[in-house]
Amino acid sequence: MELRYQAKVEYDGTDFLGFQIQAQGRTVQGELEKAIERITQKRVRVLGAGRTDAGVHATGQVIAFDVSWRHTDRELHRALNAVLPKDIAIRQLTTSYSAFHPRFDAEWRQYRYTILNISIRSPLWARNAYQVAEPLDLGAMREASQSVVGSRDFAAFGKPTQGTSTVRHVMRAEWFVEQPKDIEGELLFFEIRANAFLYRMVRNIVGTLVRVGLGVQAPEEVAALLETKDRAAAGPPAPPCGLCLVKVGYTVNEQRVTK
Amino acid sequence: MELRYQAKVEYDGTDFLGFQIQAQGRTVQGELEKAIERITQKRVRVLGAGRTDAGVHATGQVIAFDVSWRHTDRELHRALNAVLPKDIAIRQLTTSYSAFHPRFDAEWRQYRYTILNISIRSPLWARNAYQVAEPLDLGAMREASQSVVGSRDFAAFGKPTQGTSTVRHVMRAEWFVEQPKDIEGELLFFEIRANAFLYRMVRNIVGTLVRVGLGVQAPEEVAALLETKDRAAAGPPAPPCGLCLVKVGYTVNEQRVTK
Repeated sequence: MELRYQAKVEYDGTDFLGFQIQAQGRTVQGELEKAIERITQKRVRVLGAGRTDAGVHATGQVIAFDVSWRHTDRELHRALNAVLPKDIAIRQLTTSYSAFHPRFDAEWRQYRYTILNISIRSPLWARNAYQVAEPLDLGAMREASQSVVGSRDFAAFGKPTQGTSTVRHVMRAEWFVEQPKDIEGELLFFEIRANAFLYRMVRNIVGTLVRVGLGVQAPEEVAALLETKDRAAAGPPAPPCGLCLVKVGYTVNEQRVTK
Repeated sequence: MELRYQAKVEYDGTDFLGFQIQAQGRTVQGELEKAIERITQKRVRVLGAGRTDAGVHATGQVIAFDVSWRHTDRELHRALNAVLPKDIAIRQLTTSYSAFHPRFDAEWRQYRYTILNISIRSPLWARNAYQVAEPLDLGAMREASQSVVGSRDFAAFGKPTQGTSTVRHVMRAEWFVEQPKDIEGELLFFEIRANAFLYRMVRNIVGTLVRVGLGVQAPEEVAALLETKDRAAAGPPAPPCGLCLVKVGYTVNEQRVTK
């Protein structure tokens, strides 16, 4: 019997053209579909919660796919991880209810954006952080980020990937600081949760917050910038290497199938 | 006037055949010499404090080289970082006294070895940690690691890279634990400092300590293993990706040249 499976997926996005399958080039979805075909001898379509861009990472991407599998979930999980490339791994895998859709059923997505504020670029952080050489004023960035919390029209920070509404509900937007090991700088982590995001919204917000941190823009200007609803008014997007999809939230569903 | 420069170098060792230059293939020393030649139009020999193996990283490798440079140290530093590949950067650069030798003058070297103890491999840690799937008993590993502290004959843990003595003085060997972001496992950091290390000594010690952590060997057996002075008696070396040269110690030298 064919069942729907859901899985939590981690990947290093550096060497992918993004999550979504394309006619040419290496994608996360493409590699997942290849692995599933190799194990189950069936060509499947993998559904994903978020279409992360080229270079964007994930520790908690959620996917779903339908296959008929005679063994345990655990065995399917292990078999897939054994054939997946080094830069993708399935962290959890279970059967789901047949209508489960990782994107449409998601209540919220949480991303983390990592900035390494350091005067000299760090090779060991090259794949996982946006490195900013000039000192950043974290206080100003914290103040500015409060302007994006709430239900707001984010037209200035991106285009919708579906539909026409640019209103999104940001539940939290917080900064955390850590010391990197052995090197001088500071790691700044921006954690943002919303019901959904516009295309490049997190990177566009971070790009603008960095301008605030550099003193190019005042913290209170971010609220005014949102009001313009003009994409051209905001800063350039922060690079993809700093971004990671960490968690996707769902309401507990009672219809889960267990074999 | 030609002066000796000393520099602290960081690199992601993944895509190198190691520090030391070879007839064929990409090495850290080779890339540093190419960068210096490109900036100063002079072919130089770069001296390094430690000949790290293929795949081994550094945040605090120390190098020295002689060039004649008409501008400031800061300008040389910037120029070199601008032409060095993404996986190497010079963290600090100053002039030194002419006899300074990063290897012979070093009083101690400190390495960190990173283990990610996690049931499912993490793609985001693939380049920077040895991933062990079975649970490790950190208490046993801590106990065992005390056997390697002090002046001892480490013949069971490696061969000398020069000379014949296999006696080395380990000043400290400690484990630290951290939680990785968003994923379940545990990060175990092993910090070891010694006057010098035998070839693959840190990786051989960690390989054996992992056997202790897995319960394959008792903590007290490590002292007995040292006594055998037999390389075949120890565990296989832990993989290079977990290893990082973090610091090299020198006594403050009064002869430093300032321009």
